[in-house]
Amino acid sequence: MTTPPPSRLPVASAPASDARRYVIGVDLGGTNIVVGAMPEDGSREIGVRSQPTRAEQGSDAVVDRICEMIEAVITDARAEEGMPREAFLGVGVGAPGPLDRERGIVVVAPNLGWRDLPLRDLIGERVGLAATLDNDANCATLGEWWTGAAKGGRNVVGITIGTGIGGGLILDGRLYHGSSDVAGEIGHTTIDSNGRRCKCGNYGCLEAYTSGPNIALRAREALESGERSILPELVGGELARITAATVYEASERGDALAREVVRDTARFLGAGIANLLNVFNPDVVVIAGGVTQAGDALFEPLRAEVRRRAFKPAVEACRIVPGTLPGTAGVVGAVATFLQQRDR
Amino acid sequence: MTTPPPSRLPVASAPASDARRYVIGVDLGGTNIVVGAMPEDGSREIGVRSQPTRAEQGSDAVVDRICEMIEAVITDARAEEGMPREAFLGVGVGAPGPLDRERGIVVVAPNLGWRDLPLRDLIGERVGLAATLDNDANCATLGEWWTGAAKGGRNVVGITIGTGIGGGLILDGRLYHGSSDVAGEIGHTTIDSNGRRCKCGNYGCLEAYTSGPNIALRAREALESGERSILPELVGGELARITAATVYEASERGDALAREVVRDTARFLGAGIANLLNVFNPDVVVIAGGVTQAGDALFEPLRAEVRRRAFKPAVEACRIVPGTLPGTAGVVGAVATFLQQRDR
Repeated sequence: MTTPPPSRLPVASAPASDARRYVIGVDLGGTNIVVGAMPEDGSREIGVRSQPTRAEQGSDAVVDRICEMIEAVITDARAEEGMPREAFLGVGVGAPGPLDRERGIVVVAPNLGWRDLPLRDLIGERVGLAATLDNDANCATLGEWWTGAAKGGRNVVGITIGTGIGGGLILDGRLYHGSSDVAGEIGHTTIDSNGRRCKCGNYGCLEAYTSGPNIALRAREALESGERSILPELVGGELARITAATVYEASERGDALAREVVRDTARFLGAGIANLLNVFNPDVVVIAGGVTQAGDALFEPLRAEVRRRAFKPAVEACRIVPGTLPGTAGVVGAVATFLQQRDR
Repeated sequence: MTTPPPSRLPVASAPASDARRYVIGVDLGGTNIVVGAMPEDGSREIGVRSQPTRAEQGSDAVVDRICEMIEAVITDARAEEGMPREAFLGVGVGAPGPLDRERGIVVVAPNLGWRDLPLRDLIGERVGLAATLDNDANCATLGEWWTGAAKGGRNVVGITIGTGIGGGLILDGRLYHGSSDVAGEIGHTTIDSNGRRCKCGNYGCLEAYTSGPNIALRAREALESGERSILPELVGGELARITAATVYEASERGDALAREVVRDTARFLGAGIANLLNVFNPDVVVIAGGVTQAGDALFEPLRAEVRRRAFKPAVEACRIVPGTLPGTAGVVGAVATFLQQRDR
């Protein structure tokens, strides 16, 4: 019923790839910049390093920092593996959107305070290498597909849960961008059309229930009802300091209220993912971000909710798994987007 | 920001297509069978005819009827255009799913009472032509894309509203089937995770609000509240006889209750379509089926709801339009699926 996944990216065994040619990946986030290199065959990560973004210093300073990190990665990699500088084919950059991918421009990045910044060319020209730009959530999904938990998938949905909810779609082995580069906004699908107001303006978005801050918010709301919990103790009585991570910790220690919040999170995510199964019929859904710390306490009820809601042939075709590249999915995926854009 | 739509199907001006080679399309529904022919360039529909399905007579009788209709179409077309029988390349068949497309089998068709019927080969062998099988909702979407309202689109969502809600996706100019041929079940996406029970077992599916029977049901529920309406009069007082078409008629005559039901339908559809815009970022959403009779009374509030809920760059990239091939989208699309499967 299915055909084998196409391998449009080089893999270790493919003759077209070359373990002696390298690509640099940049994962630019609101908090940190992560940069590293990989050989074209995806076999290893080299010289990966992270620095704070410090967006408040302005875009010039951030671009400077990225370029310095790229040079440091090249120096490290050459020291380690002895390749010439010509062995570096280029730089793939992942950045928060919306982007104009064709022109390599960050259109708006509220967390960075940027508007219409030609990031791709600023970096590419400075380091003297070809460069590409893609959305950070797309990169994370492609990274998990290339060398992580979604390896071997043909149609993949990636969901990254953090301050917001990012999403990426891989269809028939390629990133799907949609008609104006905004495809994959999975966090902004309605699961309750009369539900919570989302910061995007819509009501009942998945993100309004299951982003990190909204998981913490639901825990604080539950505490207001007077239920007993170890959560207040974990934050020294300052309820405002409760984060999603605090909730996972309390859940792991057996706290009933925190477990209920995690179970509800699983149910909301399950409803959103069931929608995606019925529409996309993917073979892998990979979930990344802090939420995966909750482990089976999250994934078991989540899978049960998806089974309850989605069509059986769609459920049977799909595995729902946590990401396996927590620190580097973005960098690995940025390298992969460079290779896919080059090859298209 | 966008690239031009690929034209993977031959169009009138493309040199690869040939106006002297023909394909037959079969649209098998629970109520009617529609069969017709088209030249490979999609320039016209020839000999289109319809007969009742009469599924209660069993699958042999239905397959007989389809094959007789195919022979009649060939005879008619040859009389009209004088081509030899060899000018017919094959038959594309659209049927209700789930299907096993690779093997050409109807896995389960509840409305027909079929299970594991090798429909593609039964037809192809009988008429001595190559044959392909695809889902009826996929065919309808592809038909609207090839020669109807979604022409020129690169990423298209098709929604057919009837007894159920069918959906089809065209991504980068090709039908998208997913990992086990069940992609596009747009009717079974949750818009309210605690909402109405759907016959699929899930809660709050789009279909549970906006299928034809559910539109009629919501009207009957509204009447129970005692509101005044011309609906009872239109059905001679027998409320059970109210259908979606009755609601559209009453709405057109200015009936306030019917208008409210249509507006609610628009809001539900708008929430579901906004989800699709945020995830798929299509350039066209084409809506077909009886519901389009409601015209602007439906489409205007629907577009407003989508604008309210979806991301601006996704809204701006997309037109939401009624289908323009009401009787023949399925046949046109079945011809097109034959050509796409041949060319892949």
